Amino acid sequence: MHRTKIRVVEDALDANNTIARANRDDFDRAAVTVVNLMSAPGAGKTTLLERALVDLDGVRPGVLEGDVQGSLDADRLAGLHLPVTQLNTDPGFGGECHLDANMVRSALPDLPLDDIDLLIVENVGNLVCPAEFRVGEDARAMICSVTEGEDKPLKYPLMFRACELVVINKIDLLPHLEFDVEKLIHNLDVVNPGARRMLVSARTGEGVEAFAEWLVETARR
Amino acid sequence: MHRTKIRVVEDALDANNTIARANRDDFDRAAVTVVNLMSAPGAGKTTLLERALVDLDGVRPGVLEGDVQGSLDADRLAGLHLPVTQLNTDPGFGGECHLDANMVRSALPDLPLDDIDLLIVENVGNLVCPAEFRVGEDARAMICSVTEGEDKPLKYPLMFRACELVVINKIDLLPHLEFDVEKLIHNLDVVNPGARRMLVSARTGEGVEAFAEWLVETARR
Repeated sequence: MHRTKIRVVEDALDANNTIARANRDDFDRAAVTVVNLMSAPGAGKTTLLERALVDLDGVRPGVLEGDVQGSLDADRLAGLHLPVTQLNTDPGFGGECHLDANMVRSALPDLPLDDIDLLIVENVGNLVCPAEFRVGEDARAMICSVTEGEDKPLKYPLMFRACELVVINKIDLLPHLEFDVEKLIHNLDVVNPGARRMLVSARTGEGVEAFAEWLVETARR
Repeated sequence: MHRTKIRVVEDALDANNTIARANRDDFDRAAVTVVNLMSAPGAGKTTLLERALVDLDGVRPGVLEGDVQGSLDADRLAGLHLPVTQLNTDPGFGGECHLDANMVRSALPDLPLDDIDLLIVENVGNLVCPAEFRVGEDARAMICSVTEGEDKPLKYPLMFRACELVVINKIDLLPHLEFDVEKLIHNLDVVNPGARRMLVSARTGEGVEAFAEWLVETARR
């Protein structure tokens, strides 16, 4: 029983990786760099994008919004006047907790790949499943918020290990929290010492420039 | 392919429900009430339990701690001198994002059911998958934190619908946030008007008594 389950899951991940590679080939052909952006629910992915995508030094961004249901985040980004495509995982019964390569593939016809240089895939808010499913991205970044506690890298190591950039958000709230930034960074070093990290407040804009610069660098490398 | 996937998932949920019923029978035989406590990562489940389980008016609580990895939360609860059993989902490849009935069943031999009246199952931090897998509980409660934004009931409706109690936590931070409690409650009413809701700060202790009372009521009903 247990073995069967493992085989089914391994098959699913293999199939996902095959489709992810096909996505990647399509993105490469269009010269589009793809960033898979992940976090827990409410960590501030959309707010950070609202701030950061305003000026990317000539790099033309687009966003693929992954949500279980609704288009609230896509609506919020509409004011930026850049291509935003909504993808709901709701019909994907049993797979609604993350975006997978096949869902992203199904959105390809709606993505204006010729008009963008950088596609940000805003994943479903979840610190577990999205880390297991590649979608054809070039880089993975995650946001963790200081309101979530310092222990998160130790409790969700797969996610923190999967990302090359960890954005530590909501630092404007630090004066009101018992939160030790050094402790979080220590825990991050335990699971992923090579990850870049940056402190930002998507609300006040503090530190957002560094994230925008990382996006530009990533798009150009 | 899609149909096969749906069948596999439906089979998995059916199997889960069968085991959940067996768990429920065992809990009933031992006269133990079970609460499945869910939330996003970092919403404050453990802190709330640290506060609320100190005095339950004669009801004897125990905790089953679900985590992907580690025993950080169980260690935090050790000071309460009540039975705490750790359950790591890590070995359950592909299912590590939630507790399921079989994982809880595997922990039954370690649970001192004769010494407790109320078992709190602290689920993995995740607003999607845990809502789909019953574990044999009598009641489901969730915590949402005011730092996560007012839109969460609309974005994760399955979780908010699955619970009879929604604890709105971290209200001590309200003066420092642009957060509209009425808007959150309106969104909760859209997806689950019948859910009880309470405002608490697990950090300061404000409102925690109401949660403790709900636990006592649930254990005695």
